[in-house]
Amino acid sequence: MLPTSLMRAVSKTSTCSLIPHLPSSTLPSLSASLSTTSPASSLVQTEVDNMGIATVKLARAPVNSLNLELLQELGSTVRELEVSGAKALILTSAQPTVFCSGLDIMEMYKPDPERLSKFWSTFQETWRSLYGSRLPTVAAITGHSPAGGCVLAMSCDYRVMQSPAFKIGMNETALGTGVPYWIKELMVRTVGHRQAELAFQLSILFDPQSALQIGLVDEVAESREKVMEAATNIALKFAAIPSEARHATKMLMRKPFIDDLASRKEADIEFTIDTFMDPTLQKNMGLYLEAMRKKSKK
Amino acid sequence: MLPTSLMRAVSKTSTCSLIPHLPSSTLPSLSASLSTTSPASSLVQTEVDNMGIATVKLARAPVNSLNLELLQELGSTVRELEVSGAKALILTSAQPTVFCSGLDIMEMYKPDPERLSKFWSTFQETWRSLYGSRLPTVAAITGHSPAGGCVLAMSCDYRVMQSPAFKIGMNETALGTGVPYWIKELMVRTVGHRQAELAFQLSILFDPQSALQIGLVDEVAESREKVMEAATNIALKFAAIPSEARHATKMLMRKPFIDDLASRKEADIEFTIDTFMDPTLQKNMGLYLEAMRKKSKK
Amino acid sequence: MLPTSLMRAVSKTSTCSLIPHLPSSTLPSLSASLSTTSPASSLVQTEVDNMGIATVKLARAPVNSLNLELLQELGSTVRELEVSGAKALILTSAQPTVFCSGLDIMEMYKPDPERLSKFWSTFQETWRSLYGSRLPTVAAITGHSPAGGCVLAMSCDYRVMQSPAFKIGMNETALGTGVPYWIKELMVRTVGHRQAELAFQLSILFDPQSALQIGLVDEVAESREKVMEAATNIALKFAAIPSEARHATKMLMRKPFIDDLASRKEADIEFTIDTFMDPTLQKNMGLYLEAMRKKSKK
Repeated sequence: MLPTSLMRAVSKTSTCSLIPHLPSSTLPSLSASLSTTSPASSLVQTEVDNMGIATVKLARAPVNSLNLELLQELGSTVRELEVSGAKALILTSAQPTVFCSGLDIMEMYKPDPERLSKFWSTFQETWRSLYGSRLPTVAAITGHSPAGGCVLAMSCDYRVMQSPAFKIGMNETALGTGVPYWIKELMVRTVGHRQAELAFQLSILFDPQSALQIGLVDEVAESREKVMEAATNIALKFAAIPSEARHATKMLMRKPFIDDLASRKEADIEFTIDTFMDPTLQKNMGLYLEAMRKKSKK
Repeated sequence: MLPTSLMRAVSKTSTCSLIPHLPSSTLPSLSASLSTTSPASSLVQTEVDNMGIATVKLARAPVNSLNLELLQELGSTVRELEVSGAKALILTSAQPTVFCSGLDIMEMYKPDPERLSKFWSTFQETWRSLYGSRLPTVAAITGHSPAGGCVLAMSCDYRVMQSPAFKIGMNETALGTGVPYWIKELMVRTVGHRQAELAFQLSILFDPQSALQIGLVDEVAESREKVMEAATNIALKFAAIPSEARHATKMLMRKPFIDDLASRKEADIEFTIDTFMDPTLQKNMGLYLEAMRKKSKK
Repeated sequence: MLPTSLMRAVSKTSTCSLIPHLPSSTLPSLSASLSTTSPASSLVQTEVDNMGIATVKLARAPVNSLNLELLQELGSTVRELEVSGAKALILTSAQPTVFCSGLDIMEMYKPDPERLSKFWSTFQETWRSLYGSRLPTVAAITGHSPAGGCVLAMSCDYRVMQSPAFKIGMNETALGTGVPYWIKELMVRTVGHRQAELAFQLSILFDPQSALQIGLVDEVAESREKVMEAATNIALKFAAIPSEARHATKMLMRKPFIDDLASRKEADIEFTIDTFMDPTLQKNMGLYLEAMRKKSKK
């Protein structure tokens, strides 16, 4: 999540990547994302079908890296759908091989402190909107889903993942960084204490079957179409449960955790700013980005 | 547990049921239970064998729905067995296809506030007696075990379930209701946070193999006789462990949780009374009961 | 962990054992350990290979029972390796069939209160050093690992166990004793609440495959050599992750728990001393030890 010693990674390997265990074919598109900004209006594509199932596609090419605008648009989309009469929300990707590559490193590189503060606060709020949504939420993971992508998926009520080509996991330590306490807590709630500890320490990017085995995803399907079909089926099952009772029980499980982050919101932002304003970290990020750009030009 | 929006369920479906996912063959007996009251003296049948294994059978025909008297008798039976020299307790059912159908809706319909208060307080106390018992407790689940039936099973030290005909689970949200926080906690302690969250939200009634897979039961057996045999075998294993050390360790795991409910006992009762005295809820329950009665007359 | 009613075990069985479910061939060596004291200098054997992987062998023949000196030497070895430039630590045994048999009963029998206090405080500190180590730690479990042996294994970051001959588990209740709250917590963090509860109550000693299934170990291998090979492979994977980020994440998971024991350190020691100074317990331990000695002479 928070790159801290990227320098080490850069100096030790001839190639490097924010998503080091992913197939190298995803790298050019990743580095390309560093220099493009899509207009906010197209970052999230939403369709609601005649059964009330809303499909929300992350559409920030090439790899849906989460910048301020994408997070804002995702958060407001979730909140608007809640009052729109939609019955359930499927979160997926408009990209062919990536669900979401995680936080956009450009938000953390040479940051304006004010924008960084807004970025992190928006990340918290969007997470809160998604994790506590009145709607049932299903992640249709049709591509790679490392780091912040895995966080989005874990914040839904259910996860269907396309098998076998893609990977999912919390690979922050391999990038030389830790995770905030609330993302640690989210992982523990998803896969349990032991698997969370192991996955974090080893920076494991799981193939879909392994993710299924430890409970990081709930279901796998063998094509994009089958993932969407399975996501729709489970969304309809959620939607068939009386919504007040369903959401009350969801909140019984999640509200203490959501409230806890709310109470630590400012401290979490301050910590993030302090971390990223560190000159050494900035220098390391610069070297990292330069290496990425060279690689993408080859 | 606490029906709140049954009206919705009634108005949306042509048939309805407190146990909606169960085979319809169990419905007539369920609705029949709404109008019968067994004498207290026969609600629980207890036998102790020559090895000190006590078998406690819930015997409130037709579906062991938990009214005040059954809860009282179950609680006092557990407490009496503890001082009787028994070595272990097997909780099972005198009915052919139902372990326990859950709380008796008639205790919540047009309730006398004083009796409702006593009912809920007795539910808490009986749970506490079972969950913290000095005796090893084994649930021999020889029939369906939804909602409050699942709570009783989860309060034992071990669960053996008859396969494959029956279902077990926390199906309250499908009935339009939530669960009290302590029952949520009991579920989390049994199957972990993630599976509890999913099971509650989707109101899943598990077949025995699925229940085994997520740890909601510990063992399955293919006939009533084999369930009782497996329950006896494991009860003897528990009984072979020095009882003081075994119970001390059980309390190390459970006492903080038991004490927490004790400290919130009154608040939990008040919340229950407030919930059930709500006129809309009462109206919905009336419509629900009427639909049940019509169904049972067909 | 803390023998409290061994008398009962002695009086009820013609044979008895601190490790009652283990093959009887391990018993003579266990009882032999009760009367020998190895010089401190050889209790732990350490080698560091050319990749920086340190192998730490418990070497207190015959069964690595944990006395004050062994705990001291293990703790200081872990702390010294942290500042030595080593990349990872593999904890294993110099004995052929035992990883570690647990706490040395002689530390608790007719104890000098001052030494007992130091013993228990050292147990806490060594656990803390191991559980919070800056180094990745891998337990290579090449023999039986009951009670305190299981605690050492659970305090590492990863566990590889030799299959199928050996057993691992928390078998304290079978010995008539409970466990301290922090060891309960360690077990819950490793296998989850439900499996911990069941394992404690039934004093289960797991074969490697069953241990793998509940997550008590992470990997099994079929010979001592293959265990060491697997342990080395995983140690290298841990070591390949940037160490600051890896350790920061480990501490995010573990520090609150470590700090909690630190804050209760004195109370935990006092409780231990009170427990062991009890005359009845001492008498029971004496009878137990006598039975062990007679058995070993046959």
